Amino acid sequence: MKIVAFAGGVGGAKFAHGLAHVLPPEDLTVIVNTGDDFEHYGLYICPDLDTVCYTLAGMANPDTGWGRVNETWDVIENAARLGGPAWFRLGDQDLGTHLERTRRMKEGQTLSQITEDFCKAWDIQSMILPMSDQPVRTMVETEEGDLAFQEYFVHRRCEPRVRGFRFEGVEVAEPAPGVKEAIQAADAVIICPSNPWVSINPILHVVKSIEKPVIAISPIIGGKTVKGPAAKMYHELGIEPSAVAVARHYCDLITGFVFDTVDRQLEGEIKSLNLRTLVTNTLMHSHDDRKQLASHILSFIGTDL
Amino acid sequence: MKIVAFAGGVGGAKFAHGLAHVLPPEDLTVIVNTGDDFEHYGLYICPDLDTVCYTLAGMANPDTGWGRVNETWDVIENAARLGGPAWFRLGDQDLGTHLERTRRMKEGQTLSQITEDFCKAWDIQSMILPMSDQPVRTMVETEEGDLAFQEYFVHRRCEPRVRGFRFEGVEVAEPAPGVKEAIQAADAVIICPSNPWVSINPILHVVKSIEKPVIAISPIIGGKTVKGPAAKMYHELGIEPSAVAVARHYCDLITGFVFDTVDRQLEGEIKSLNLRTLVTNTLMHSHDDRKQLASHILSFIGTDL
Repeated sequence: MKIVAFAGGVGGAKFAHGLAHVLPPEDLTVIVNTGDDFEHYGLYICPDLDTVCYTLAGMANPDTGWGRVNETWDVIENAARLGGPAWFRLGDQDLGTHLERTRRMKEGQTLSQITEDFCKAWDIQSMILPMSDQPVRTMVETEEGDLAFQEYFVHRRCEPRVRGFRFEGVEVAEPAPGVKEAIQAADAVIICPSNPWVSINPILHVVKSIEKPVIAISPIIGGKTVKGPAAKMYHELGIEPSAVAVARHYCDLITGFVFDTVDRQLEGEIKSLNLRTLVTNTLMHSHDDRKQLASHILSFIGTDL
Repeated sequence: MKIVAFAGGVGGAKFAHGLAHVLPPEDLTVIVNTGDDFEHYGLYICPDLDTVCYTLAGMANPDTGWGRVNETWDVIENAARLGGPAWFRLGDQDLGTHLERTRRMKEGQTLSQITEDFCKAWDIQSMILPMSDQPVRTMVETEEGDLAFQEYFVHRRCEPRVRGFRFEGVEVAEPAPGVKEAIQAADAVIICPSNPWVSINPILHVVKSIEKPVIAISPIIGGKTVKGPAAKMYHELGIEPSAVAVARHYCDLITGFVFDTVDRQLEGEIKSLNLRTLVTNTLMHSHDDRKQLASHILSFIGTDL
């Protein structure tokens, strides 16, 4: 079974890692949000892409989910001593990625070429693609004005109340080479348990139409998110955060919906949206959890094909 | 006695450090070559300026003379693993400087503003000024074509035979704020034992006229340089490398010349250029050597004022 997964940062990376364990490499393509990419210290930084790559390469920091394992912080500490901003924690190993990516971008290489080369160097077997080679910049519209995503997410710690989102450049951004082809070749598309507003929506805007079965995994469990501001965003947008809210968010696009056993009581309401449902453990504490969730979801998709 | 010193990299930094030990901070201004500045990995790098600052701050690597003491190399090793060039060794602590400098330059700050702030952060008491806030780029004209300075110096290890030098941008480059004022206020200008062709000539081109007594220290000792390609350059330009060659190089500009005791037999020839001479130990192995040389030279200047 050929699968395309849409992923944002930590949650998406963990699930994509599960898929990479249970699918032959040639049957998995992970398409990653680039809406939260930004320039910092003159370097081109792709937080979601790096989180997915580091996770699939087994190099991610298991404590944070982002950044590199056994990381050191000499560069940013030295920059901070000179008055540089330290709110975005750039580790020394991680900076190797940003430096080389920046060098190549300045040479005119595309983000997808660079990502392909980096995946080879890191011995990642599955295909990881940025959603687009053109810049798309997620702007968070808040009560304190518009904020670039990392400014909102990391610098302001998601504190300003959200009013909406804008994806600058999305009208002209084309799917990266391989994105359309991977979707065309896929038996199904899985929307990872990533933030629907800021991780998945940018990808959906770029990809536009998906003429394949799509299933989504709720990032909201018991009204909360494991990590990140998705629940807070639903709340501030006047929607009660729940698996139902996520199912409604995606319901025009998806045929199946996966959510956690703690939300079992919502199954009737979700089914009434005309969706097939899979109720299972969606928390991914261990590598086995990732694998097991991936494996359950592939079976769930299989019964429908 | 108020002193302005013109300096390039390691040799200049060591002597400037000696001066900083024997002069009150307000009496020393070090004007540093920026002709070998370059962009690498998207970062703005000033090798001579950093060497002088690190040395005066007591943070320089004592083994190499450049870079930082107790340095680590995580970033560049990770970049190299992705195919990035590793010929210019960027250490992790050192990269903190480049990142913050690049960030500020992109914000529109000038190199001299940035250098002033960095010196404060590093607790450097004497004044260190870049020769100019406008870019000057030393090009080495070689038998294999023109090479940017770091390309020649670090990447090609000074191997291509030199035919000449060009300082791109030097016609429009203004002395940085404070440079003219420091020279005007100085009792004397000292040309450090730096490479006359590529470290001092760019500064002289930018500064243009110096209406003060100038004395120079030979970087060539016994026909050789302690470090760097000055002797090789003289040779390839058809001039026998020696303290006399250096004295001739500067003789229209200087009134006094300092050279090493091993070259004592050249004193007559140098005096015949109408120069006062100081023959002394100019090798700077230890911190005491630096101090002692600085102190001898200040006495030598004092006898003439």
